[in-house]
Amino acid sequence: MHPLPKGFSLAVANAKFRQRSLERNDIGLVLCDHEAVVAGVFTKNLFKAAPVLVSQSLIKKALPLRGVLINSGQANACTGDEGMANCLESLGMVESLFALPKQSLLPASTGVIGDHMDMEKWKNALDELEGTLGAAQVEDFARAIITTDAYPKMASRQVEVNGVTVSFTAVAKGAGMICPNMATMLSVVLTDAKVSKEEWQQAFDIAVEQSFNRVSVDGDTSTNDSLYGFSSGDSGQSLDQNLLVKELTAVLSDVAYLLVKDGEGSTKVIHIRVHGAKNKEDAEGIARCVGHSQLVKTAMFGRDPNWGRIVAAMGRSGVEFDPMKAQLFLCGIEVFAKGCPIKMDLDTVFHDLLDKIDIPIDIYLNEGDASSFLLASDLSHGYVSVNADYRT
Amino acid sequence: MHPLPKGFSLAVANAKFRQRSLERNDIGLVLCDHEAVVAGVFTKNLFKAAPVLVSQSLIKKALPLRGVLINSGQANACTGDEGMANCLESLGMVESLFALPKQSLLPASTGVIGDHMDMEKWKNALDELEGTLGAAQVEDFARAIITTDAYPKMASRQVEVNGVTVSFTAVAKGAGMICPNMATMLSVVLTDAKVSKEEWQQAFDIAVEQSFNRVSVDGDTSTNDSLYGFSSGDSGQSLDQNLLVKELTAVLSDVAYLLVKDGEGSTKVIHIRVHGAKNKEDAEGIARCVGHSQLVKTAMFGRDPNWGRIVAAMGRSGVEFDPMKAQLFLCGIEVFAKGCPIKMDLDTVFHDLLDKIDIPIDIYLNEGDASSFLLASDLSHGYVSVNADYRT
Repeated sequence: MHPLPKGFSLAVANAKFRQRSLERNDIGLVLCDHEAVVAGVFTKNLFKAAPVLVSQSLIKKALPLRGVLINSGQANACTGDEGMANCLESLGMVESLFALPKQSLLPASTGVIGDHMDMEKWKNALDELEGTLGAAQVEDFARAIITTDAYPKMASRQVEVNGVTVSFTAVAKGAGMICPNMATMLSVVLTDAKVSKEEWQQAFDIAVEQSFNRVSVDGDTSTNDSLYGFSSGDSGQSLDQNLLVKELTAVLSDVAYLLVKDGEGSTKVIHIRVHGAKNKEDAEGIARCVGHSQLVKTAMFGRDPNWGRIVAAMGRSGVEFDPMKAQLFLCGIEVFAKGCPIKMDLDTVFHDLLDKIDIPIDIYLNEGDASSFLLASDLSHGYVSVNADYRT
Repeated sequence: MHPLPKGFSLAVANAKFRQRSLERNDIGLVLCDHEAVVAGVFTKNLFKAAPVLVSQSLIKKALPLRGVLINSGQANACTGDEGMANCLESLGMVESLFALPKQSLLPASTGVIGDHMDMEKWKNALDELEGTLGAAQVEDFARAIITTDAYPKMASRQVEVNGVTVSFTAVAKGAGMICPNMATMLSVVLTDAKVSKEEWQQAFDIAVEQSFNRVSVDGDTSTNDSLYGFSSGDSGQSLDQNLLVKELTAVLSDVAYLLVKDGEGSTKVIHIRVHGAKNKEDAEGIARCVGHSQLVKTAMFGRDPNWGRIVAAMGRSGVEFDPMKAQLFLCGIEVFAKGCPIKMDLDTVFHDLLDKIDIPIDIYLNEGDASSFLLASDLSHGYVSVNADYRT
């Protein structure tokens, strides 16, 4: 069981937004007992959903924020002025319910794009939301915000500083539409560490770059991707900034790994590491081209040591490097170097290596000192099934 | 039946390179009765297969060329010096067989990356290749060069100029690893139009840009993509350059359409047209981002009018545009404008529209005069099945 950092309460409710899983909760609320220190990272998609626009605006206003209200099943994206009005109305209802100041809650939504939210369903869910406040556990909240996820995603870390326990707990909704170097999917991380707003946002930006921006499921970035960080400060203990970054990165990396592992239809976590690139951009470019290659992804799903597809993806990445100097290791075994295959019987050597969930791909360019990594899912029949009839 | 332009002969043989279809021919030869005018376009992948390197070198040398020798089942890519030697040896054997000058044939190979060619199998196939020369039809040749294609791909055009019939016939091997704006998959186009080398290569470059560079199956570009154009001049008739470009573009577009229609596991041809962009690059960037989106592709496979995924792909393309000015039409029906969905019952309106093979997506940015288009396949269970166990 993942602990809830001090100073926070959770509530959940079932508004029955979703056609497909009417029995599951679909509203989750995080509430801080007092003003929280808040950081946010949002999608770079030009079509930003109403809750993203509202959250960005509220954070910018620097009003005292108390929590985040999340619904799943309705993305409230591409919904224009009506979507903005519905978003603000849902926040207002919950703020009134808990006697919170106006504009003290941030919104987040996930689900089908283009549908308007059903405000009657919101109203009908308020009693339940009120009744569960304080009783809902981290797992209840995590379950309330997922869509096509196979399981709720949580991670937590606890660190002792001067005899005081400081907690970090992260919850995420993932599955599809996850792409590196854009913003993130839906995720909330809570801590009771004592932090300033500047420390918190800075630690956040670094931790996100090393965790959520290093995962890829299908290369698509959603209209709703949002990551929220709330600090109550209620442990009373501050952390050295390096330790804060380290712990935050660790907890977000744990959740990011789960996102890939539970990518839509995913059966593998492909760990792509590029070494010896001329610069960071080159290393990232190759990691992404390999991680996004449908042919590499299907080969891994098929447990097929077809390393030629990895080499082909490296070569078409647009990164300039000497192909004769590149080396490729699959599952720790060198398969390609100096422009040639390493002679071996692939079927014997890779007999059961590709049955594992975690598949390492190590690329050595031997051009410089820069490196990068990416966690990518495979591409399976499950992915196609989930996405061919998501709306209906 | 597609006619063979004057001055060419074809031959085929079965070397049994392929494990999976031993009964099918896997060598195809195009031979011109005399020196031909030759143009080529090749993959931009840094890892170029041996036959690509050899072809580029031979075309550069400007020696008199007589034809192209294609094998399927072994890509001869990532095979180093041994691969280069094998490529040259296979060409030498066939040049000797038909008493052709040395270095008068271009090579092309398609199949699994990283395997060495089996030279014994080449030797054993020579008698059959000799026996079929002149008897093999365009369809026989087209069948010999395919791999996972469901059917051979051919197109032909005939144009009357000054009472003389000038013919164009194109053959292609497609299926997977097809991406726009890189080079092309394997294809050969033959004509008996009288052309200069400069006219031919120039017409070729324009025609390829408007045909093969406008199709996408999975966004991957192979190590072997090659497009060859041979002109015998044997009609005796030259064409105005505009007419040459027009006819060549038409025949290559016909084959390119078939490539998408028969993309691995493809059930749809998605016609993505971007209108009113600020410039060509913007229009292309959006068309590609939509055409490569796994979420758009799976929705189309599932006959799901989930247009929100198209909007999301537009928004994450990296192209700057005003999202409030954009309009989206799916199957000719306006579904999104001014940041809002057009109100309708999607299931009723799109009842059977998405059952069709050809699905038009029209995007109006209302920012300028530039436009672009892309033909993209969908993403189906068939694609995953074909690619999860291709090597084995």
